[in-house]
Amino acid sequence: MNAVHAPITAPPEKTELDHRLERVRELMAERNLDYYVSFDPVNVYYMTNFANYVHERPFLLIIGKQGAPTMLAPLLELTHVKMRARCDLEYVTYYEFPAPEGENWYDIYPTLFAENSRVGIESAMPVGIARRTPGDVTMTDVIDEARVIKSEYEIGRTTHACSIVDLGHAMVLEICKPGLPEGTIYSAVSGTMTKKVFEDIPNANFFITKTAAFVWPPTIGHDPHHFPSLATPMEDGGPHVSIVAAQVDGYGVELERTFFLGEVPEHARKPFDVMFRARAKAYEMLRPGQDLAEIDATVRRVIVDAGYEDSILHRTGHGFGITGHEAPYLAIGENRLLEAGMTVSIEPGIYREGEGGYRHSDTVLITEDGYVCLTNAPETLEELILAV
Amino acid sequence: MNAVHAPITAPPEKTELDHRLERVRELMAERNLDYYVSFDPVNVYYMTNFANYVHERPFLLIIGKQGAPTMLAPLLELTHVKMRARCDLEYVTYYEFPAPEGENWYDIYPTLFAENSRVGIESAMPVGIARRTPGDVTMTDVIDEARVIKSEYEIGRTTHACSIVDLGHAMVLEICKPGLPEGTIYSAVSGTMTKKVFEDIPNANFFITKTAAFVWPPTIGHDPHHFPSLATPMEDGGPHVSIVAAQVDGYGVELERTFFLGEVPEHARKPFDVMFRARAKAYEMLRPGQDLAEIDATVRRVIVDAGYEDSILHRTGHGFGITGHEAPYLAIGENRLLEAGMTVSIEPGIYREGEGGYRHSDTVLITEDGYVCLTNAPETLEELILAV
Repeated sequence: MNAVHAPITAPPEKTELDHRLERVRELMAERNLDYYVSFDPVNVYYMTNFANYVHERPFLLIIGKQGAPTMLAPLLELTHVKMRARCDLEYVTYYEFPAPEGENWYDIYPTLFAENSRVGIESAMPVGIARRTPGDVTMTDVIDEARVIKSEYEIGRTTHACSIVDLGHAMVLEICKPGLPEGTIYSAVSGTMTKKVFEDIPNANFFITKTAAFVWPPTIGHDPHHFPSLATPMEDGGPHVSIVAAQVDGYGVELERTFFLGEVPEHARKPFDVMFRARAKAYEMLRPGQDLAEIDATVRRVIVDAGYEDSILHRTGHGFGITGHEAPYLAIGENRLLEAGMTVSIEPGIYREGEGGYRHSDTVLITEDGYVCLTNAPETLEELILAV
Repeated sequence: MNAVHAPITAPPEKTELDHRLERVRELMAERNLDYYVSFDPVNVYYMTNFANYVHERPFLLIIGKQGAPTMLAPLLELTHVKMRARCDLEYVTYYEFPAPEGENWYDIYPTLFAENSRVGIESAMPVGIARRTPGDVTMTDVIDEARVIKSEYEIGRTTHACSIVDLGHAMVLEICKPGLPEGTIYSAVSGTMTKKVFEDIPNANFFITKTAAFVWPPTIGHDPHHFPSLATPMEDGGPHVSIVAAQVDGYGVELERTFFLGEVPEHARKPFDVMFRARAKAYEMLRPGQDLAEIDATVRRVIVDAGYEDSILHRTGHGFGITGHEAPYLAIGENRLLEAGMTVSIEPGIYREGEGGYRHSDTVLITEDGYVCLTNAPETLEELILAV
């Protein structure tokens, strides 16, 4: 694996999707499954390059042990599926929901399996579909598991997606001034990123292209999953925490920084420094074979030892891929080792009510001998004190 | 119920949410349930006014027979939930996913029920959560059912949401010219609608505020769920089909028209007329007590009798509410009568490859003595031939 990956903007070749299918079938074989059914739009997209959103008319991808998988889809969407799918598929359609008796998706679905089969389903499958699944049904997240290690193609797509958030983040730091409302940052930066996505990928799939840019000023920064009013103004000083995230034609990434407008309040220096050291500790441990729970535990210890145990609200990081949040998790409950080809966030945070939040986050690729940070923005306190 | 409803932009009062809870408990009692568990973010929003998106950390709303419902939420999101929820709730939190053994959501969740209870769950609940649900578990869509009949408050919110798509649709008809790319329509009109939403509702919840504006030109119009490239240009003549939809601080509506740029091709006159008559037939039948399947069957007959049986791809309509697509369905498979307080689309369509699509859609409220159309745009062929 090279240290630098060229950005890729093209849709996947059939060979890429064939490799994914092969990997899923290996996992199916390990679990002794005759079929695997995917409902989760994220997994269907991974396998086919077709993205849908969930509505009352389900799309179900049925993968047997060989041959082309079967896509059970609403009639209305058939050409839509065919337009985007880039693998071999057998199509079976149903007319509408609800349909007259005998013609509903749930009338057709069970007929697509050989009798007495062992069928794997996702834990995310709605129970209403799971209960219509015939055979000996096992819940096992086979496709989610296949997604954990990225191919060279996926790394190229993620590298490109990171160039989009790099652009957006540089703009955030450029325009952010005391008094500027949240909504202005969002619309200016999100608009710029979206425009660039469609310049780079004119046929990008709109369903799975989203850009977001926000800044949490000190007043709300202690609450990282708060969702502020768009009128919320930026403040003097800081800490301000930026959140720049994108799903670029399917590929999710993020870039976040703790920064200051004009001056650093005295009380902010220590927590910034502790966050910075916790983050450095995480990077120090990033290489194949490291235990993900141990990384989180070690990073937490840096924060706890500095006296901020009560200021921890979340784990050290999470995976990326065709979502902005997925396995593997750098969390004390995770039972997994780091492997080359994982992409993760590194984002230990400190949250203090009345002061704000302290968190940097990057999108990072694990390589054979360590890691490459795919996002780029200033990191040190000195670089992150912005002129106002 | 009055013929005209004043638009409402305020969040729901506690009394509104209390009424919803009361209705859900009536339905629970009919099904002899001790608890009902909601995972679906749409239903959680309906009950609490708190909207989340699905990630690996679930939010679970547990409704007992009395007292405040319990919200099991990730620690990280506690203040976020509290900021938006406008009903009484008991909070139980868990730290992160995954968490150390014994501290995961699935360790805590089963302890929140009395032993040997009868527990209702949604058909949309992921099977991975359903399998962790204790007691005698029944799949029954109680909250979805409660949502079918709208309160005066909800009708006021929907009325306001319709004013947003009215604005957007007028702009589509104003700017649409041959050669104009899809992406320009989208960004101009969607931007205008979003801006108006946040002017009207400065604290609108961004998670559940979305606006979309597209036009299917003749080349792709036969494929209504196609998703075109943003570079797709508008054409001379038509039929063009507009899709203007919004979720306005939670409330979903749509407005669509078949229109022509400059001239009407001769082959388009008959299908437009048939669509227009099919639609008129639907409106003629809109009043409480009518069978939804019978409406769809009657409307289909208009289209079939005109020789366009093969040009039907979908039902006559669907419900609206806090989504843009929900029960009840005006579909030949639906088993339900119209009732006052339902909000539905009326949108029979005709789709002809090589010609395009023919469909108008409105957001319509069923009243005690008929209906009120809540969206407004030109309807006749003459009005929909636009100067270029």
